Amino acid sequence: MAVSPFAPTSFPHLPPVAGVRLAVGQAGIRYKDRTDVLLAEFAEGTHVAGVFTRSLTASAPVLACRDSLKGGTARALAVNSGNANAFTGSVGVASVERVMETCAGLIGCDASEVFTASTGVIGERLPDDKITIALSGLKKNLAEDAWEQAARAIMTTDTYPKMATRTAKIGGVSVVVNGIAKGSGMIAPDMATMLAFVFTDAAIPQAELQALLSEANDATFNCVTVDGDTSTSDTLLLFATGRANNPAGDTADFRRALHEVLHELALHVVKDGEGAEKFVTITVTGAESGSAARRIGMSIANSPLVKTALAASDANWGRIVMAVGKAGEKADRDKLMIRIGGVSVAKNGEPDPAYRESQVADHMRGREIAIEVDVGVGQGRATVWTCDLTHRYIDINGSYRT
Amino acid sequence: MAVSPFAPTSFPHLPPVAGVRLAVGQAGIRYKDRTDVLLAEFAEGTHVAGVFTRSLTASAPVLACRDSLKGGTARALAVNSGNANAFTGSVGVASVERVMETCAGLIGCDASEVFTASTGVIGERLPDDKITIALSGLKKNLAEDAWEQAARAIMTTDTYPKMATRTAKIGGVSVVVNGIAKGSGMIAPDMATMLAFVFTDAAIPQAELQALLSEANDATFNCVTVDGDTSTSDTLLLFATGRANNPAGDTADFRRALHEVLHELALHVVKDGEGAEKFVTITVTGAESGSAARRIGMSIANSPLVKTALAASDANWGRIVMAVGKAGEKADRDKLMIRIGGVSVAKNGEPDPAYRESQVADHMRGREIAIEVDVGVGQGRATVWTCDLTHRYIDINGSYRT
Repeated sequence: MAVSPFAPTSFPHLPPVAGVRLAVGQAGIRYKDRTDVLLAEFAEGTHVAGVFTRSLTASAPVLACRDSLKGGTARALAVNSGNANAFTGSVGVASVERVMETCAGLIGCDASEVFTASTGVIGERLPDDKITIALSGLKKNLAEDAWEQAARAIMTTDTYPKMATRTAKIGGVSVVVNGIAKGSGMIAPDMATMLAFVFTDAAIPQAELQALLSEANDATFNCVTVDGDTSTSDTLLLFATGRANNPAGDTADFRRALHEVLHELALHVVKDGEGAEKFVTITVTGAESGSAARRIGMSIANSPLVKTALAASDANWGRIVMAVGKAGEKADRDKLMIRIGGVSVAKNGEPDPAYRESQVADHMRGREIAIEVDVGVGQGRATVWTCDLTHRYIDINGSYRT
Repeated sequence: MAVSPFAPTSFPHLPPVAGVRLAVGQAGIRYKDRTDVLLAEFAEGTHVAGVFTRSLTASAPVLACRDSLKGGTARALAVNSGNANAFTGSVGVASVERVMETCAGLIGCDASEVFTASTGVIGERLPDDKITIALSGLKKNLAEDAWEQAARAIMTTDTYPKMATRTAKIGGVSVVVNGIAKGSGMIAPDMATMLAFVFTDAAIPQAELQALLSEANDATFNCVTVDGDTSTSDTLLLFATGRANNPAGDTADFRRALHEVLHELALHVVKDGEGAEKFVTITVTGAESGSAARRIGMSIANSPLVKTALAASDANWGRIVMAVGKAGEKADRDKLMIRIGGVSVAKNGEPDPAYRESQVADHMRGREIAIEVDVGVGQGRATVWTCDLTHRYIDINGSYRT
């Protein structure tokens, strides 16, 4: 498969996170000659926070994670790629339990402290025997520096591994925030699934950790879209080992670092979106509220007519008007303002008399497109990120099994 | 442009409707060597009902129609293709007024009894002078039998004209219901717009006419989708001249005929959808309500992952599970049932053990695909219709202006 034109030429170096050790292995679930299982071990007392898909047909691992999250602590994370263990009924639930129990035995913890994620085919029974055998061999390999290996093991049809790192200060003590993610390559043969795991040595109470994660997720992963489809398996987990031994204190800088890590990972998910040739930033202002602005932005970002125009480098702003109109959020037609690449194309509900299409032609032909829309009714604003809809999207999603 | 594989080999003959006369002309708005203006004249006392786009950026003609509808009577309809008169501000409003006044002068009625619809480019000033000149020449050509010409004049990138006719009895008297529509060819260079006009000689009070139209629309045009995008110009108008002189009576048979005409037109819109190679019927049962069932059906019908799988003749039912899960309506994961072409592929929240993909291979390769989903929580049911997402959709929508 062709690598995304947005693939970075080099990957960031992720430093160790005190209290986190990683190992990867080959269970042979679906892929040959590559790793497909990740085991992470966490120090005792590690707090965990999570955000999951809102799908009503969520996978068995998502249901188990939601349940384990009630305890608030984590000792292990086990991830496999190649099979989503979704729509697998009671058999799938039992598979998750076996994986959790195997990890609990390896690490020496309660099964409820083990979190799992699976990504890949829907509706096929998880070969949990292969996974538990592979996991059992990994304990001796656990290491502090296996970040890139971890990011690669969770890939499905991602064309490059996704990693980000930041440091922050809490109460004068430096803490690390590392994140890895997999994204919107098609999860053969089913759907784009987003998995992201973030690890920090910060000591932060569980309730605050959850609040920080939910807030950061809302401004990052919840603001990106490839095709508007929602996976049964989307999972974001944040593990905080506390081994930095920072005092309780102002978490504003940690909040900034967490946001930056999630932001960087979320943008990689879009840039490695199925068939993506253009990366599109849509900023909506003047909406009734921030969530109204995001819904308008998502209406533009998910419109097939907008996305096909972008793929063709066509500054077809009439389709943006259409997508604003269908979003179902308040907008003042007679104050609507649209800019493309910083050039005013429409204002006061009419085409800008000064606008000439040649002004935006170069911008439209570029890799990164900026769209700004002001809907003229309030102060709400939001930015969402998406990619274009290309022939390769259809090839990737149509040709897999036939 | 290639004609839809679903284009009928012959068109139905639409009989005259007493009190309706039609004429078409060439205003040269956008298209060369074809008609692009339709004028319809209605007998005095004609009642009118309408349903319009819910877009908040509705076009100037839609706003004018909504306003005129308050009067409840109609004497003329003027439609142009090639320019949507949308997002044209106060200039656009003035253009509609000039068209209405011209028709009022021709027919000898109040401007508020003239209905207009425009379809085509967004954000370009309507050349209303060309339209009023063309309309002025049409009065002498008004005729009872110009139905196919009318259906052709309102086309944009439709690949065939869309017509349907039925008869019904009210109080023992026979009435005619004729309909014409244009659909989801791309409205160069902007968006798929649906316009439909229905004409009957039935005598039906305006309030009842509106209720009948809203109900029939809800089960037909509101249940079809091509790409989930919503036009600024969608317009459905029903004109009832009363010239059949039927007594007031049970309108059940008229209701049936109206439903059938709208159903036939709506299905033509899907079958002539942009790039459509497959016609897909999705029936959802077991939902909490009829509207919940429709939302689940639309979530499946609008999913790019489902639509690309259909284009590839791939029975990828995992994507149907995903689309049910993201619909936001109640569904019992452990009772979910899916059938494709009548074959059970999943039941009780798991793949059907008896299912083999070969059982549906022939069905998936065919032109018409049937998907049934039962979500296991109630009695709500709905059927929606859609088409697949093909390379040609991207070509049509991406390549127009570049």
